[in-house]
Amino acid sequence: MSASELSTVRPATGGATDALRRSNLATVLGMVHRDGALTRSDLTRLTGLNRSTVGDLVAELQGLGLVEVDEAHVAPGRAGRPSPLVKVSDGVAAVAVNPEVDAVIVGLVGLGGRVLKRVRIETASARSAAETVTLASAGIAGMLAGETRVRIAGIGVAVPGQVRLSDGMVREATHFGWVDEPLAAMLGAATGLRVWAANAAVLGLRAESAFGAGRGVDDLVYMIGGASGVGGGVISGGRLLTGAAGYAGEFGHTFVRSDGRDCSCGSRGCLEAEVTQAELLASVGLASSDAARLGDALEASDDPAAVEIAARDYAYLRIACRNAVNVFNPSVLVLGGFLAALYRGARAHDAADLLEEVVHSSRDGVEIREAALGTDQMLIGAAELVFADLISDPARALAGAA
Amino acid sequence: MSASELSTVRPATGGATDALRRSNLATVLGMVHRDGALTRSDLTRLTGLNRSTVGDLVAELQGLGLVEVDEAHVAPGRAGRPSPLVKVSDGVAAVAVNPEVDAVIVGLVGLGGRVLKRVRIETASARSAAETVTLASAGIAGMLAGETRVRIAGIGVAVPGQVRLSDGMVREATHFGWVDEPLAAMLGAATGLRVWAANAAVLGLRAESAFGAGRGVDDLVYMIGGASGVGGGVISGGRLLTGAAGYAGEFGHTFVRSDGRDCSCGSRGCLEAEVTQAELLASVGLASSDAARLGDALEASDDPAAVEIAARDYAYLRIACRNAVNVFNPSVLVLGGFLAALYRGARAHDAADLLEEVVHSSRDGVEIREAALGTDQMLIGAAELVFADLISDPARALAGAA
Repeated sequence: MSASELSTVRPATGGATDALRRSNLATVLGMVHRDGALTRSDLTRLTGLNRSTVGDLVAELQGLGLVEVDEAHVAPGRAGRPSPLVKVSDGVAAVAVNPEVDAVIVGLVGLGGRVLKRVRIETASARSAAETVTLASAGIAGMLAGETRVRIAGIGVAVPGQVRLSDGMVREATHFGWVDEPLAAMLGAATGLRVWAANAAVLGLRAESAFGAGRGVDDLVYMIGGASGVGGGVISGGRLLTGAAGYAGEFGHTFVRSDGRDCSCGSRGCLEAEVTQAELLASVGLASSDAARLGDALEASDDPAAVEIAARDYAYLRIACRNAVNVFNPSVLVLGGFLAALYRGARAHDAADLLEEVVHSSRDGVEIREAALGTDQMLIGAAELVFADLISDPARALAGAA
Repeated sequence: MSASELSTVRPATGGATDALRRSNLATVLGMVHRDGALTRSDLTRLTGLNRSTVGDLVAELQGLGLVEVDEAHVAPGRAGRPSPLVKVSDGVAAVAVNPEVDAVIVGLVGLGGRVLKRVRIETASARSAAETVTLASAGIAGMLAGETRVRIAGIGVAVPGQVRLSDGMVREATHFGWVDEPLAAMLGAATGLRVWAANAAVLGLRAESAFGAGRGVDDLVYMIGGASGVGGGVISGGRLLTGAAGYAGEFGHTFVRSDGRDCSCGSRGCLEAEVTQAELLASVGLASSDAARLGDALEASDDPAAVEIAARDYAYLRIACRNAVNVFNPSVLVLGGFLAALYRGARAHDAADLLEEVVHSSRDGVEIREAALGTDQMLIGAAELVFADLISDPARALAGAA
């Protein structure tokens, strides 16, 4: 136990009953959110609370429009009395926004990480933060038109850049040329909704952790590659690693090559400078809109020039993964986007093990997985910013909802 | 908040009063341990507990021989009534063991991280784990001979290698040639005391975090270099990063050079293969026993060959630090051992900023510090393994003490 951990042990003080009730409410809503549906007896067993307390909490969540209860449900495969099934409701949702290089993607995401609607607003590249806010606001307005039954708990934004967690300030988004853009505040002013923002790759990790390839994993390293570079994030000891200000997880700026290429960060030889989606796509004759087919193409490729590019890029990926596993000692390594495609292609060509050069003890038993949620992961992760706040205190959060 | 964090929210169940009392006792003892001495009114203010509860807890700790109370103390510089000063006692201590390449160091460490005694048992190199246990046991027996007034809460071992946290199994210690040596169990059988073991660099971090250059820092990266290589550790969000099994923080195996030197880990181009204490010492004409003078020597050096070696090594250190700050976004970076010496030497020779090539937003405001506890940090850190257990439940821990 670290010094700081000890210092967080605090006795319960005034308002302990309210705090305990909020905590229990958060526990129950969080469980239903992550599982989608649980019986009331599951909740009783999982929380350790008694049946009547769980009943009260579920009734309160139902009253807030957050869950639905199917009283007649019989849990499949179990004997005995029917236990009501508690499911997330569609009455409350989050708006998710993901500005990309050539588009602004807007989604409506329900509890349980369900993407209910999505729209991709194509744009010219290199637009300003103000233009992005205008486009996103228009897309949100369109998406919510006629949606009379759903309450919006807030907006989450997944930004391909460094975002200060405390206030959603985009410190740097080199692919847009943004420096110190208060994106969350701007979108909040434009829409009247509460807005959170964070790094897109970290939100991809949150989505995979809650609903995808990293579900239930306490020590997880995540790396994802897309059109705008390579990012990532880490869960260690069951907690998301944010760093002091929210910029942790920049695996794209891991050094992989001496005297390497110039990187957008101002340094040289970074993973995202040496290994790009554009080059890999071009090597197998695919366009940028075909990124989803890259893995299959790399697996099938037997063109020597393409195989050589993939082998070179895979060697750089191995260095970045070796560093990450040596430093984090994860139990699972998740690869997303074109990094997953690169890994699949390498395996099809009998390449060396991805983690062969990791320190022996840390290598044992590390499982390598592909990200499971595809392109929706940024929307689902952005919505998690909203839902984390909602779950922590549902009544307070909904008092401010649209 | 991550999914896993939410799932740790648990209602208090049976035995809540006992658990709360143990938690409060741990809080008070932990505060006195880290600060050395606090007045009872400080403790009241810091814990938020009421005066009589704090009085009871202090009396219980006094009864266990863990603290002493100076009833007549007047807090310096404060007006008003005297408040009793609560200090750590010398009645309970931990034994610390640090096997190095050429010696076994044994220490007696009091609460508050005070090294009360130390002995360095010189050895031939490349000894077995069994020989190490025999030497350490002899040193411990000698150190405790005649110590009738001190109770030993356990033994902590700082191992230069990968140690599995769950059982103190040394998975690998390449400098000794050890693989899968149950060192903690062996030393426990030899001494009859409870034994914990962990990686030495991580324990250095724990010591610096509790009592040294990292005191009170929630987001801290630590790298230390010694005769047996480079290690490190991380505190993130106030918690020690252990990884899935306890092997996290292997910054010595960060990749820093393409086509680099072979490393003991089986890979190539690792920081600890490229940058060694032996080469730096030799470059300025120092013997291995002069390691403490390396920083001064590098600062003063104007021999071109030595300056060139230091510049080359500093460039590799910069790559490892750039990776670490990009990935962890710390507020403080602490350098220890010969890495601190290398950094001091580079600054004296107007070298480039250590973090110049870090991603802009993560670079802002990172403070670089030298480790403060010197060679005692391994003993202090090893004792922290014992004290963490002691503090978590003093009465139970002392029931099993020698």
